[in-house]
Amino acid sequence: MIIDCHGHYTTEPKDLHRFRQEQTKAVKDKTAMPSRASLKMSDDEIRESLEGAQLKLQRERGTDLTIFSPRASGMGHHIGDESVSLEWTQICNDLIHRVVSLYPKNFIGVCQLPQSQGVAPKNSVAELERAITELGFVGCNLNPDPSGGYFNSPPLTDKWWYPFYEKMVELDVPAMIHVSGCCNPAQHTTGSYYLNADTMAFMQLILSDLFKDFPTLKLIIPHGGGAVPFHWGRFRGIALNNNRPELAEIIGNNIFFDTCVYHQPGIDLLAKVVPADNILFASEMVGAVKGVDPKSGFYFDDTKRYIDNAAGFSDADRKKIFEDNAIKVYPRLKNAMAKQRAKAS
Amino acid sequence: MIIDCHGHYTTEPKDLHRFRQEQTKAVKDKTAMPSRASLKMSDDEIRESLEGAQLKLQRERGTDLTIFSPRASGMGHHIGDESVSLEWTQICNDLIHRVVSLYPKNFIGVCQLPQSQGVAPKNSVAELERAITELGFVGCNLNPDPSGGYFNSPPLTDKWWYPFYEKMVELDVPAMIHVSGCCNPAQHTTGSYYLNADTMAFMQLILSDLFKDFPTLKLIIPHGGGAVPFHWGRFRGIALNNNRPELAEIIGNNIFFDTCVYHQPGIDLLAKVVPADNILFASEMVGAVKGVDPKSGFYFDDTKRYIDNAAGFSDADRKKIFEDNAIKVYPRLKNAMAKQRAKAS
Repeated sequence: MIIDCHGHYTTEPKDLHRFRQEQTKAVKDKTAMPSRASLKMSDDEIRESLEGAQLKLQRERGTDLTIFSPRASGMGHHIGDESVSLEWTQICNDLIHRVVSLYPKNFIGVCQLPQSQGVAPKNSVAELERAITELGFVGCNLNPDPSGGYFNSPPLTDKWWYPFYEKMVELDVPAMIHVSGCCNPAQHTTGSYYLNADTMAFMQLILSDLFKDFPTLKLIIPHGGGAVPFHWGRFRGIALNNNRPELAEIIGNNIFFDTCVYHQPGIDLLAKVVPADNILFASEMVGAVKGVDPKSGFYFDDTKRYIDNAAGFSDADRKKIFEDNAIKVYPRLKNAMAKQRAKAS
Repeated sequence: MIIDCHGHYTTEPKDLHRFRQEQTKAVKDKTAMPSRASLKMSDDEIRESLEGAQLKLQRERGTDLTIFSPRASGMGHHIGDESVSLEWTQICNDLIHRVVSLYPKNFIGVCQLPQSQGVAPKNSVAELERAITELGFVGCNLNPDPSGGYFNSPPLTDKWWYPFYEKMVELDVPAMIHVSGCCNPAQHTTGSYYLNADTMAFMQLILSDLFKDFPTLKLIIPHGGGAVPFHWGRFRGIALNNNRPELAEIIGNNIFFDTCVYHQPGIDLLAKVVPADNILFASEMVGAVKGVDPKSGFYFDDTKRYIDNAAGFSDADRKKIFEDNAIKVYPRLKNAMAKQRAKAS
């Protein structure tokens, strides 16, 4: 089986965008919020939005299942207050639940959280619990920077985040550390901001004792870990200078990188430096880079090809990366898949 | 000749630190500033600070010349106001001038700038001019984030920076885009902040028309370009999606990466994706990662070894990277070297 652990619903029905635009405008103008009941998204529209996109690409690329969450850049935790974020988050998560219900063999849900600038992460516990226990999701996207580009939240290793980690551990779900759209003109959402958040998060984690406090906590750093594999020697050196062990030991069974790296030399490097046990297959299709590489003739984000072609991976490594590691990192995945497959047949 | 384009004076005499501590305390306490005249740094102390460090490593590693600037993390543009930054900057630049005067064959100067949060870059023009025309320096370190970690300055492509670029072009000097110490607890100075600033800067540049406005402007992105080479496919794809040409064409004769990447697979990747014309040899010794790699037995930051061993570089590439590109990117370097060598003999 080939499990893509990083897909966002980026082809949502139009009316979702209409709602969000109205909600954002109401925040700005301090007028009445649009009503959730006004949202019109039929099952047919949802089907149509996926058939020519994610589902088509799954078939073409030979992947089986996408771990699917709301559009990351759309989470917009910097827009409005906590109540705005909660309303929007529940709508987005419910929409993912509808996707999963329509295509139980193709998608498994991961939730967005109702984070908000300056608001304690413990306030996201209830929605996490709802998504996991009621919607059947298997993980969450945790935003380390709800400001949308200014990196002014406490580090992920700060006690500020602990009540949320406690609930994650209790529910046995991992988080993908993923920022949202950038409102800071100095950073480009998918070009620099995403990668910078990834690099920031990794660095916060490796000098901390977070995983002593939460030995079973699992965090996925997307986009191949940002700058980390390219600078593996720098991070190794900094860790060793700080009397920490080798990075491979630090990341252990707690930190994982995905394979959203859109060229062969990048994946080759990942294969060389990151243990295969800590790599999860992912493409982030349909996402940051939608085009076809004019040099290769293939989609930039068709990352399966790079993994298939990377000499640094053995077949055993590939099995881990495509399937086994996902089952390990998302402990609820196996049951969720069985349940959804039973429903589908 | 082997020219290391990225060295900072990180082994400064003690009294410099005493002065800076007093200056920082005076800013905080709103008391009188320490006097510049109080600074006691003898030539012998300066010699001693270098003989067992940068000079020893030059000899051991077989490099000839280091393009040398004040400690990057020490620039501290977020500390105090513009007058504090100017005082500190002049002291640091004058100290580099003393180093260069003591070892004219080993070092060429690059200046720090008196940037300050929210202050227009044009205010740094006078100190740039002083450093180039009076001190004989060949370039500057330009800080894209004088806030020290919040990335809240206008992008480098904004007109805000133009008066400074005009002076750079007039003087024919490049800038290394280099942030300083991080006061944001979410980012680690040398582990994530430096790399994030590099990635941010590159992304700002590639979608802009900055080099149409300044065809001869030369910018060096240090630390191997941050996350950029590892995500070359992502950046290529984003550029192409935005109707920009191939990255190699965009970077042209304007954007250069250094080789401060502290492991072989990283340099191998750099060799694969970045044109050799756009790579400058650098080690940033004695800098972010001071230790010896227990696996290789060599210093992490002995980057010459990685370049020597990278199969992706031809001997012609190596000549460019070690020497020719530096001469090209720092147009004043050749004359400055000749002048200093004449002085030395």
